[in-house]
Amino acid sequence: MKEHTRQKLIDATYEEIYSNGYQGAALSEILKKAGVHKGSMYHYFENKKDMSLVAINEKMDARFFERYGKILELQNGFVDALIAGYKDTTKRDFKRGCPIANIVQEMSNIDEDFNLTMKTVYEKFRANIKNILDKAVEVKEFKPCNTQKLALYISAVLEGAILAAKASGDEQDFLDTIEILEEYLKEFIL
Amino acid sequence: MKEHTRQKLIDATYEEIYSNGYQGAALSEILKKAGVHKGSMYHYFENKKDMSLVAINEKMDARFFERYGKILELQNGFVDALIAGYKDTTKRDFKRGCPIANIVQEMSNIDEDFNLTMKTVYEKFRANIKNILDKAVEVKEFKPCNTQKLALYISAVLEGAILAAKASGDEQDFLDTIEILEEYLKEFIL
Repeated sequence: MKEHTRQKLIDATYEEIYSNGYQGAALSEILKKAGVHKGSMYHYFENKKDMSLVAINEKMDARFFERYGKILELQNGFVDALIAGYKDTTKRDFKRGCPIANIVQEMSNIDEDFNLTMKTVYEKFRANIKNILDKAVEVKEFKPCNTQKLALYISAVLEGAILAAKASGDEQDFLDTIEILEEYLKEFIL
Repeated sequence: MKEHTRQKLIDATYEEIYSNGYQGAALSEILKKAGVHKGSMYHYFENKKDMSLVAINEKMDARFFERYGKILELQNGFVDALIAGYKDTTKRDFKRGCPIANIVQEMSNIDEDFNLTMKTVYEKFRANIKNILDKAVEVKEFKPCNTQKLALYISAVLEGAILAAKASGDEQDFLDTIEILEEYLKEFIL
């Protein structure tokens, strides 16, 4: 029951921040959505900020496992699976954009705790992609290359693609950008 | 004198939004920085939001002219000039990131006026890049290709590169991403 309350708070906090940004997220709205009283919240978290940082970390870890961790459990077809995952837009919400990018853009310059949290989240994001490229090189599916730098590039293109679709309101902008990335990556596939 | 007051308000509004986001931008701070009384502000703008949308439009138009308009006035070397411009980081502020992306991420999902304004700004951003590519194709410096789609890709990579540097606090992430983009674009240079 206790974990249940905590999880409800985490879920509601994440959703509220994802929709309205951290500064626009109202604690009253989070508590209402979670169906939890303020007093119970203090049992788990110090304040809105503490709860938000924990929610971002936990939700992003889960998301990374869902998207990248599962690919790392494969035996082969690593880069194909990575690209196929990016082309599948069913789990994306282009109206709200990328939760990582939103918070970096909003908060990294104005709050040091957010800055450090998002730096770590971004590092995990890039490390996940790098690990997949390294696996692909290891099983000789992919040309040996600077996988650190290529992972940075892939993460940047992905973020830019999501932003383009959010700005235009057109999912096709995301797909077109990923298509050119795919073309570029195919040069490396053995 | 009147235009001077208006410009001071535009400059201060842009700076305040760029540093703190629209929701975090305090009207009192804008007026203080501009050295303008609230009463005078209402002479030019209806409210904080009206002033913000005008500031974004005017500042972005000036920025686009500075970065892209000048390249379009060249006779040749279009794509080289575009890449050289991206590699020159002296006019960038990676701590604050990209002003366009910041506002899209913060506001496009929560306010329809911002959504429409940023959609138009983003369209201009992409049109500027497309025009440069078209010029390069026209003077036979660049392989004929889908310049609309390639302009989208370039804008996405650029945005992703700025975000990566903002998240990590490391300008090198921007430069490394642009280097891979340059490599990709070189395939098209004739």
